[in-house]
Amino acid sequence: MLKNYEIRKYQMPPDEIKALVKEKREELVRQQLMIKEQAIPVFVLIEGWGAAGKGTLIGNLIEDMDPRFFRVIKMSEPNEEARRRPFLWRYMEVAPETGKFVFLDSGWLSETADDMINGRIDDETLERRLWQIRTFDRQLKDNGYLVVKLFLQIPQEEQKRRMEKLQNDKNTRWRVSEKDILQVKKREKYEKIYDRILEATNTGYVPWNIVDAVDKKQALLQVLHILTIQLNQAAENRKILPEILYKDYPLLKMPKLSEIPLNQEMSKEEYEIRLKELQKKLKKLHNKIYQKKIPVIIAYEGWDAAGKGGNIKRLTSALDPRGFEVHPIASPEPHEKSRHYLWRFYHRLPKDGHIAIFDRTWYGRVMVERIEGFCSENDWKRAYNEINEFEKDLSDWGAVVIKFWVHIDSDTQLARFQERERIPEKNWKITQEDWRNREKWTEYETAVNEMIEKTSTENAPWYIIQSNNKYYARLSAIQIVIAEIEKRLV
Amino acid sequence: MLKNYEIRKYQMPPDEIKALVKEKREELVRQQLMIKEQAIPVFVLIEGWGAAGKGTLIGNLIEDMDPRFFRVIKMSEPNEEARRRPFLWRYMEVAPETGKFVFLDSGWLSETADDMINGRIDDETLERRLWQIRTFDRQLKDNGYLVVKLFLQIPQEEQKRRMEKLQNDKNTRWRVSEKDILQVKKREKYEKIYDRILEATNTGYVPWNIVDAVDKKQALLQVLHILTIQLNQAAENRKILPEILYKDYPLLKMPKLSEIPLNQEMSKEEYEIRLKELQKKLKKLHNKIYQKKIPVIIAYEGWDAAGKGGNIKRLTSALDPRGFEVHPIASPEPHEKSRHYLWRFYHRLPKDGHIAIFDRTWYGRVMVERIEGFCSENDWKRAYNEINEFEKDLSDWGAVVIKFWVHIDSDTQLARFQERERIPEKNWKITQEDWRNREKWTEYETAVNEMIEKTSTENAPWYIIQSNNKYYARLSAIQIVIAEIEKRLV
Repeated sequence: MLKNYEIRKYQMPPDEIKALVKEKREELVRQQLMIKEQAIPVFVLIEGWGAAGKGTLIGNLIEDMDPRFFRVIKMSEPNEEARRRPFLWRYMEVAPETGKFVFLDSGWLSETADDMINGRIDDETLERRLWQIRTFDRQLKDNGYLVVKLFLQIPQEEQKRRMEKLQNDKNTRWRVSEKDILQVKKREKYEKIYDRILEATNTGYVPWNIVDAVDKKQALLQVLHILTIQLNQAAENRKILPEILYKDYPLLKMPKLSEIPLNQEMSKEEYEIRLKELQKKLKKLHNKIYQKKIPVIIAYEGWDAAGKGGNIKRLTSALDPRGFEVHPIASPEPHEKSRHYLWRFYHRLPKDGHIAIFDRTWYGRVMVERIEGFCSENDWKRAYNEINEFEKDLSDWGAVVIKFWVHIDSDTQLARFQERERIPEKNWKITQEDWRNREKWTEYETAVNEMIEKTSTENAPWYIIQSNNKYYARLSAIQIVIAEIEKRLV
Repeated sequence: MLKNYEIRKYQMPPDEIKALVKEKREELVRQQLMIKEQAIPVFVLIEGWGAAGKGTLIGNLIEDMDPRFFRVIKMSEPNEEARRRPFLWRYMEVAPETGKFVFLDSGWLSETADDMINGRIDDETLERRLWQIRTFDRQLKDNGYLVVKLFLQIPQEEQKRRMEKLQNDKNTRWRVSEKDILQVKKREKYEKIYDRILEATNTGYVPWNIVDAVDKKQALLQVLHILTIQLNQAAENRKILPEILYKDYPLLKMPKLSEIPLNQEMSKEEYEIRLKELQKKLKKLHNKIYQKKIPVIIAYEGWDAAGKGGNIKRLTSALDPRGFEVHPIASPEPHEKSRHYLWRFYHRLPKDGHIAIFDRTWYGRVMVERIEGFCSENDWKRAYNEINEFEKDLSDWGAVVIKFWVHIDSDTQLARFQERERIPEKNWKITQEDWRNREKWTEYETAVNEMIEKTSTENAPWYIIQSNNKYYARLSAIQIVIAEIEKRLV
């Protein structure tokens, strides 16, 4: 790509270029307002060679823009918080909100190239990252983002010349990092790896734009050109329904809810003895995953009053409280709603070696959001694949991912609801909404069956927990968690 | 304190202790529900000697609690993000939301003690931190938090014995850190510094509780005892109005708004020439504060349509976009409202060397919240002092803090409102709320005068920007920013 990129050269005298820059900049200001009105999040990634002028370019781009609606972020080396999370975690963290721009000064391209050059990642990891980047780009685009990717290209001689100039001036010397020097020295190697990444992530939905950055005015005009065109298309593009993909994940064959027997029995005595044994075992495993830095993600879904809370408590009381966190998930808050629907779950991912338990999850998309119409049909239909991708990303990172559907029958729910209304201490657990949801039991059952069918992957399986008998359910869950962690530890 | 603490010893046979522990634990579970209902945030800090059993104790405490409503956080060494912010920043970040518990395993006490022992901070910094901690505790308490501080005490011999036992077992050896070993070796030094910090932060509003941790069962019972008592009092304590403090900050003598002349004139030509000069100067200074790691915080308040947005833009277009951020402040979101009202501003503090510009600020407390009744009278009256403390904390950290009241007269506002309604491209800038606020001009003027009078400190001065003429206003603001930064650079 770097060799054969199309050079957009403006063959006109400098003052005409200047006038054109001015015109395009004014257009950008108008577009910023349009973006705000249309609530489009705009993510602009600016990559390129050291000394290619990324900083100056961004400065020129934003000069007339309203600073309340954009952020410029320089992505430096990932810190410890980021290193203990999936590769793209920190990029998802900074993804813009609706109506706002984020300009990234370097990003996943240069991070990956540096990691390859320094031998921090191998070929296999590289391939996985390329897949992750493509998926990330597509998911952002499908969920309404405009993603613009720019690469500022300068020839080797030009880069060398600029570096030397910076180094020879004592006022600018501090700006030249060791990484920059390495890049000049290993230019060919870098060229190869840049090219490989550029090509592998140059997709129809989010293409790369190679910018000839030798002449700064020409470069600025090129970028303004690219940006304004894409911004104009953004609103139009949003009207096109994204394709609903069904990727070939190895799906496990799962039963329908109606096929699950719920007649298990268990005495309190048996339960207490078994629980103690299992909790002891889990405690030891928790120590091991901590030492081996394995992240564990446990997702709880289930009928209202199925016993999720009590079930979670039996798990956590066996765990070192410094090594887990429980995330109760309610409807998204405004700053969450204005981002990709998976953002708030990325945001809550555990550090490696830690356990995150989600009390309700990202599956809200294909259950409550589907049934209540909080998202479009295209949105929830697309979500099965998006969620499979999300969970693949998690397990590629090394996470143990376990998903529970805590299951009861309709009569048992009714009995428990009535108990909650009768007993004052349990009153807070029951609301009018629970009753309303209950009326939609059949709709939910359809949605749950489809969800379980389409998202039971080998790396993130669903387990249907039979919970008419709570004792039985608690032991089942803890046994499954033990088994899944042990599988990973072998 | 460590020598003379009151030992609570339960003189009873083990099975009675066990029964009592069970009882207290059940009480704690009931209280958790009460805390949730009363929307009280509970912050429990657990400090103590290495190997005193902090982890086990926390594990025992939370065993029966509902894991959805508490978090246990192990505070390790501050990472880079934290080190580039004020000392208490990361503790504010993890402060609990209403109705939730946060248990901190170690915190500002041990961080400060370690820093003293390792010579990372001097006596002066220590004294400043002690003031910060006291202020932090009081502000949390006054704003409705329950803060419980525990210190687990074991004698030197006992600590030594426990450490050796841990080290001799290959399964537990990894749990002994270098810091732990240092603590045993420098026990006397640690004792002295612990004592100094404990005493200086043992206040009437948030006292320390020294727990004799030699016997683990006794310790657990003591802690349960302390915790349940304080939880029971928490709801009662909230009904007592906090004292409204007026600390002796050196206040600058400021004029009333009505005394400000607004008849400045300036031609566009003069403006453009001067602006260019000033922006060039500011650009250089931005480079310097980046190199010297000086944080800069610029707070904008002012009448609607006074020209804050345009004013901010003239500042930022002179700045390297990677080194500043503009934070538009609207009404708080749910997760912000459920914390200390300054939380969302702490959260947005810049890294050192960076500039944060706030478009509306923490002064909302004493303006819109006061006038609209969004907080109580006691709340906003207390806020002057709380804000002075907040800003002192910022300038102690090394920040340049600049506050602008962008001022116009009522006729000018009317003319600008009408213009916004007339011109389609400006429509988005005017809402019904702006008109409603305009009707309260006099109330706001009173509030603004009081605010400026009570919070113009030397380290964080107010500047009233005369903005009937926008050109004049923009040059004023940029001149002040330059002057304040230059003052710091001398």
